[in-house]
Amino acid sequence: MNAEIIAVGTEILLGNIVNTNAQYLSEKLSELGINVYYQSVVGDNPDRLKSCLKQAMERADLLLITGGLGPTQDDLTKETAAELMGFSLEMHEPSLERMRAYFQAVNRPMTPNNKKQAMMPKGATVLKNDCGTAPGCMMERDGKIMILLPGPPIEMKTMYEGYVRPLLLQKSDSVISSRTMRLFGIGESRAESLIADLIRESENPSIAPYAKLCEVHLRLTAKAETEEKAEQMLDETEGKVSELLGQYCYGYDEDTLQTVAVHTLMEQGKTLAVAESCTGGMIAKMITEVSGSSRVFTHGFVTYANEAKEQMLGVKHSALERFGAVSETVAMQMCRGAKEKSGADFALSVTGIAGPGGGTDKKPVGLVYIGLATSNGVRCKKLLLSGSRDKIRTQTAMNALAMLLEELK
Amino acid sequence: MNAEIIAVGTEILLGNIVNTNAQYLSEKLSELGINVYYQSVVGDNPDRLKSCLKQAMERADLLLITGGLGPTQDDLTKETAAELMGFSLEMHEPSLERMRAYFQAVNRPMTPNNKKQAMMPKGATVLKNDCGTAPGCMMERDGKIMILLPGPPIEMKTMYEGYVRPLLLQKSDSVISSRTMRLFGIGESRAESLIADLIRESENPSIAPYAKLCEVHLRLTAKAETEEKAEQMLDETEGKVSELLGQYCYGYDEDTLQTVAVHTLMEQGKTLAVAESCTGGMIAKMITEVSGSSRVFTHGFVTYANEAKEQMLGVKHSALERFGAVSETVAMQMCRGAKEKSGADFALSVTGIAGPGGGTDKKPVGLVYIGLATSNGVRCKKLLLSGSRDKIRTQTAMNALAMLLEELK
Repeated sequence: MNAEIIAVGTEILLGNIVNTNAQYLSEKLSELGINVYYQSVVGDNPDRLKSCLKQAMERADLLLITGGLGPTQDDLTKETAAELMGFSLEMHEPSLERMRAYFQAVNRPMTPNNKKQAMMPKGATVLKNDCGTAPGCMMERDGKIMILLPGPPIEMKTMYEGYVRPLLLQKSDSVISSRTMRLFGIGESRAESLIADLIRESENPSIAPYAKLCEVHLRLTAKAETEEKAEQMLDETEGKVSELLGQYCYGYDEDTLQTVAVHTLMEQGKTLAVAESCTGGMIAKMITEVSGSSRVFTHGFVTYANEAKEQMLGVKHSALERFGAVSETVAMQMCRGAKEKSGADFALSVTGIAGPGGGTDKKPVGLVYIGLATSNGVRCKKLLLSGSRDKIRTQTAMNALAMLLEELK
Repeated sequence: MNAEIIAVGTEILLGNIVNTNAQYLSEKLSELGINVYYQSVVGDNPDRLKSCLKQAMERADLLLITGGLGPTQDDLTKETAAELMGFSLEMHEPSLERMRAYFQAVNRPMTPNNKKQAMMPKGATVLKNDCGTAPGCMMERDGKIMILLPGPPIEMKTMYEGYVRPLLLQKSDSVISSRTMRLFGIGESRAESLIADLIRESENPSIAPYAKLCEVHLRLTAKAETEEKAEQMLDETEGKVSELLGQYCYGYDEDTLQTVAVHTLMEQGKTLAVAESCTGGMIAKMITEVSGSSRVFTHGFVTYANEAKEQMLGVKHSALERFGAVSETVAMQMCRGAKEKSGADFALSVTGIAGPGGGTDKKPVGLVYIGLATSNGVRCKKLLLSGSRDKIRTQTAMNALAMLLEELK
């Protein structure tokens, strides 16, 4: 099955927003083994919209169309698509009812305009909108499938996951499951070369590596008659991959270094403090992104100035003078101080030169020291990173979290 | 002039990357007054690429094509586009020379494949790549213009700014200048209603409001014979806008609350400390995003746990017990403590409930207190925010920075 993804909206053509919907749907369809040959964007203009949809119907079997389901005169997707597919519109009472309830819940009046959103193609499968007003729908005729989804990403994603994916799976005689292994501490080319034979041999499940900042993601995708069988196949392939790369795998799918770190600390009943210089609060911010992190994260010391390092962490003035703020000695004194002052079980520290200014020959931009204090003492890691200020800071934060995870294992 | 933006790359159709190039170019073309009617994405497939380009030539005068200029067999954009425009390829010696120098500089061998990148359409305007290897080009024939740009965003943007924009401006008999006023503390609909007459009356310069998280951006765009005249028109219109909304305007164009805050502190020779509970380091992280912030930002206290608030900031145990951590009293004690411990001229504090858990009837998710300590004493602001955890935290951080800016004025 070949698909085309079409986004409708003048705000995309004006560059006011990025079309992230297309990326999301492309990724999801590719997981189902559906080929996407084109993505298109067209404005809220009836003629151009019509010609765009018409052409897509000629070159694809499945059209996923996002946007233009709103209540205003501008929103024409449903009317245009239904006309092209030969469907007439009628009031869809359950949707109208649901919208009435929605407006009551958010305590806003429902305008006559909104009723337009409940007009649906007669004979289409109506798709419920669990996060907003505009319902979506699926129309099917002469081997062509057209699926209309709302434009706001949260509404679109919720509708896709809840209603579209199951419908698309029904069209297939097989089930597709995928799993992403998240690796840290190894580059893409090295990861790929270590499992090159495995990638070559594996058609089903397939193995696809993706390079991310500091990480490599391996997506395993299996096609089978049942979900159970597919999962079993994924388990087997994961086992083979793990023999070669298991030591680098810190999590799966939506896991991040910070979620895994926080959850592992919770399980072990341990607490963490962080002392940051060059990352300036980024590590604390990442940890506290995780809901419930308050149970394990106690103190964050953002010691950007040398005086703050001395005052807040008890770093020795002589160490700062002799070795400089970016040094192994200071990194170790920082995490030791953070552990003592906070009473936490673990303390991480980072000090480095994030750039773009401040580098010297001896201490170039990208030089970073990470310290970790545990009940067994203090360790330090030296890194030489490259990239923009933001990239160096992000890599530093990720490496610090990875160092903690290693310890927690 | 009507334009179409085409991105070439199977990795976009697989959903591996988001097509941010299209958004960037759409925005830039719209600033020049060029209408973008379609954006398209097509894979590295010769037939589909050809049919996509052919169609675009029928419906647009100007084609901007990104991607597919790489050294491998897959990269076919140049060959396909040149054929359609009736140009033959020839070795472009200056590009070859530049690539040789590039590879020497990065100390990597130049492969025969790379030479393919220096083959350019004969008679085209070659566009230098200042950040990578693949040059771009502009072909012109029979009133159609085709511009090929590399896919990596940094290379594409640098080439657009340096070489494409000037060429497009030459095609126009007028100059277009724009300026964005950044407003904080007012909603989009209120901002829009206050300047409704002005928007209606203003065709040149035009005024377009954009709603962002916590901010409203007003883009003023002027068209004139000279840059000077355009800037003068912008000044005039900005003056009229400022009469009505000036109090909300904190900066222009690429300014952010944190860059303006850091630069204002620098100018005034003042220092800042921050004490964060619910934002967990986000404010410190935002401030330290600004290069040079080390001159004004001294201490960051991330006091997620109550004990940390007592220990690090001297918040009274009795206050925490009586009023709870999320209270005006604690917010004020936090910033007072941060100012005292750090010796900074200003100290900001935030405490609140970021959710999704932890809310009660009396203290719902989104309740936030922001404190500010100055040499004149301590003030506090209460906010009721809504949205996801991340959104509440971001809004809190932005409001805290805005409160500081107000004080600095």
